[in-house]
Amino acid sequence: MKATVMHQAGDVRIEEVPDAAIEQPTDALIRITRACICGSDLWPYKSLAASEGIRIMGHEAIGVVEGLGSDVTSLKEGDVVVMPFASSDGTCVFCRDGLQTECVHRGFFGSGAEGYGGAQAEALRIPNADGTLYALPTGTDESLMPSLLTLADVLGTGHHAAVVARVAPGKSVAVVGDGAVGLCGVIAAKRLGAEQIIILGRHADRTDLARELGATDVVSERGEEAVEKVRELTGGFGAHSVLECVGLDQSTRTAIEVARPGGAVGRVGVPQDASMPGAQTSFYANVTVGGGPAPVRAYIDELLPDILDGRIEPGRVFDRTVDLDEVPDGYRAMNERESLKVMVKP
Amino acid sequence: MKATVMHQAGDVRIEEVPDAAIEQPTDALIRITRACICGSDLWPYKSLAASEGIRIMGHEAIGVVEGLGSDVTSLKEGDVVVMPFASSDGTCVFCRDGLQTECVHRGFFGSGAEGYGGAQAEALRIPNADGTLYALPTGTDESLMPSLLTLADVLGTGHHAAVVARVAPGKSVAVVGDGAVGLCGVIAAKRLGAEQIIILGRHADRTDLARELGATDVVSERGEEAVEKVRELTGGFGAHSVLECVGLDQSTRTAIEVARPGGAVGRVGVPQDASMPGAQTSFYANVTVGGGPAPVRAYIDELLPDILDGRIEPGRVFDRTVDLDEVPDGYRAMNERESLKVMVKP
Repeated sequence: MKATVMHQAGDVRIEEVPDAAIEQPTDALIRITRACICGSDLWPYKSLAASEGIRIMGHEAIGVVEGLGSDVTSLKEGDVVVMPFASSDGTCVFCRDGLQTECVHRGFFGSGAEGYGGAQAEALRIPNADGTLYALPTGTDESLMPSLLTLADVLGTGHHAAVVARVAPGKSVAVVGDGAVGLCGVIAAKRLGAEQIIILGRHADRTDLARELGATDVVSERGEEAVEKVRELTGGFGAHSVLECVGLDQSTRTAIEVARPGGAVGRVGVPQDASMPGAQTSFYANVTVGGGPAPVRAYIDELLPDILDGRIEPGRVFDRTVDLDEVPDGYRAMNERESLKVMVKP
Repeated sequence: MKATVMHQAGDVRIEEVPDAAIEQPTDALIRITRACICGSDLWPYKSLAASEGIRIMGHEAIGVVEGLGSDVTSLKEGDVVVMPFASSDGTCVFCRDGLQTECVHRGFFGSGAEGYGGAQAEALRIPNADGTLYALPTGTDESLMPSLLTLADVLGTGHHAAVVARVAPGKSVAVVGDGAVGLCGVIAAKRLGAEQIIILGRHADRTDLARELGATDVVSERGEEAVEKVRELTGGFGAHSVLECVGLDQSTRTAIEVARPGGAVGRVGVPQDASMPGAQTSFYANVTVGGGPAPVRAYIDELLPDILDGRIEPGRVFDRTVDLDEVPDGYRAMNERESLKVMVKP
């Protein structure tokens, strides 16, 4: 079968790899109908060393179940499923608490981890299929697929940032970053009732979209100037809730500094730098910092109805669609910021 | 009047200073009846440079109101009051939210800040008296004074750590540090219904007291060994709630590492190092880190009844009482760990 193979920084190829197949009785095999390229795929695209070995890329997908191990009970062949970016057994103490990304058997698709393939491919083996996959209602409208695909990662990730940052009705929210996760953070913040949603970003096309999705203010400054601007916009104090949707040292510092005393910062995604440069500031301002890999599997129950009813349209983050052979050009386009987020139809 | 003046590291003297007096219409003047030496007073005792200027020390007190500015409405002369370690106006948006330590007019007693005296003295001027002081019920039993004195800082600070760390019935709790704040953290955790309370400390007399106050387990190891031990005691996963009550680099790292995935760490006190060395760990485990200067003024309403009814006895953290002239020896004793916490009766 064909899959997207990253050999090293800047070197992504579509290659023939061994067909995905059932290996364990708890596995499912899915044919990928939609996948996409993630901002976090650009980290290895910028920095993967040849010595680290190849990776089959992709960790967000919608697919059709084409094979089932003998122990899988909740799925049937032909089901159209959302595949979250991490697998989870669905039964451990963390899964039962709705924190599937801390599952004792968690594994990350497209990460290069042994036994985990990638979704930018024709097919994929899904370990712990019962706990991992989420079957969509039969007959789901094809036009909704872009939005449903965001349940696999970016929408649930933006929502996680908002939940951790304690977004609630009437609150002021700052979203640091205008990428797909930041835009989904805007959607999540609006959905949770935020009164003011300030997006920090420098790309006019993206911040324009953010406004359409619910942002009330745009701050295009960076660093100390951005902090001053957010304070100005929030009565001098900063935002109750801050969503850190970039994952760099400076963005984390800014996120902590734009939080109001007593506020909360939610960090998500795959930070290139997960240290906490503003920790001293956060302490003296009683600011809480939380977040991590988002348990998107847990959030589907809550978010899916809003997509099916058309109340939210997170699929608007996709501005380009490619087939498998065009995936390498999709990486290039996202890396050069020519494209916001690329959908893949194998 | 006499007051405790720190000139530089290791040099604490009892000296004559100008009498405390009403300066603003919102001030009160209190005669100090009980004060104490705080673990955080030992930071300047270890490190204050002569070039930083002198400090009148002390930020925890019970006193009697002896003078009132013309705008003070909620107090009368003769009231016996608890003086929290920070002043607050009681009216700003943060005070109204119960976060008095982020008050827009906050000031820290005994910090050397201009206009703020110290409580290890005969008397003290209290700015914003209405918002700062808490009048005790008339006729409060003298024997309760040691416990009531902890409302000024260490009990409320331990409670803040527990609240931020989301202690709740049935949860496992790790308390890092066996000083007065750590011991008050144990009291707070038990009071909030924790099922398991593990104290990390190396001083047998203090961890013995911790057991009497509610700790179920003692871990005397440090670093990686301590982390292993806490995991062993908590089914392999770590504690739901962690109270960081030391404030050093290693203790913060340990606090984050003993937290269970999805857990929360509450940091309190006056950390010597408020950076966050375990931030990377906290991210990938979805651990929330919060805390800061504790709004002890807000917590008095909740904690006072338990002291008056004898349900908690935080005054047990005091193991020595001195008069003003003996304060320098009190510093020495605490610094040499000969004493856990020293009460001062001017």
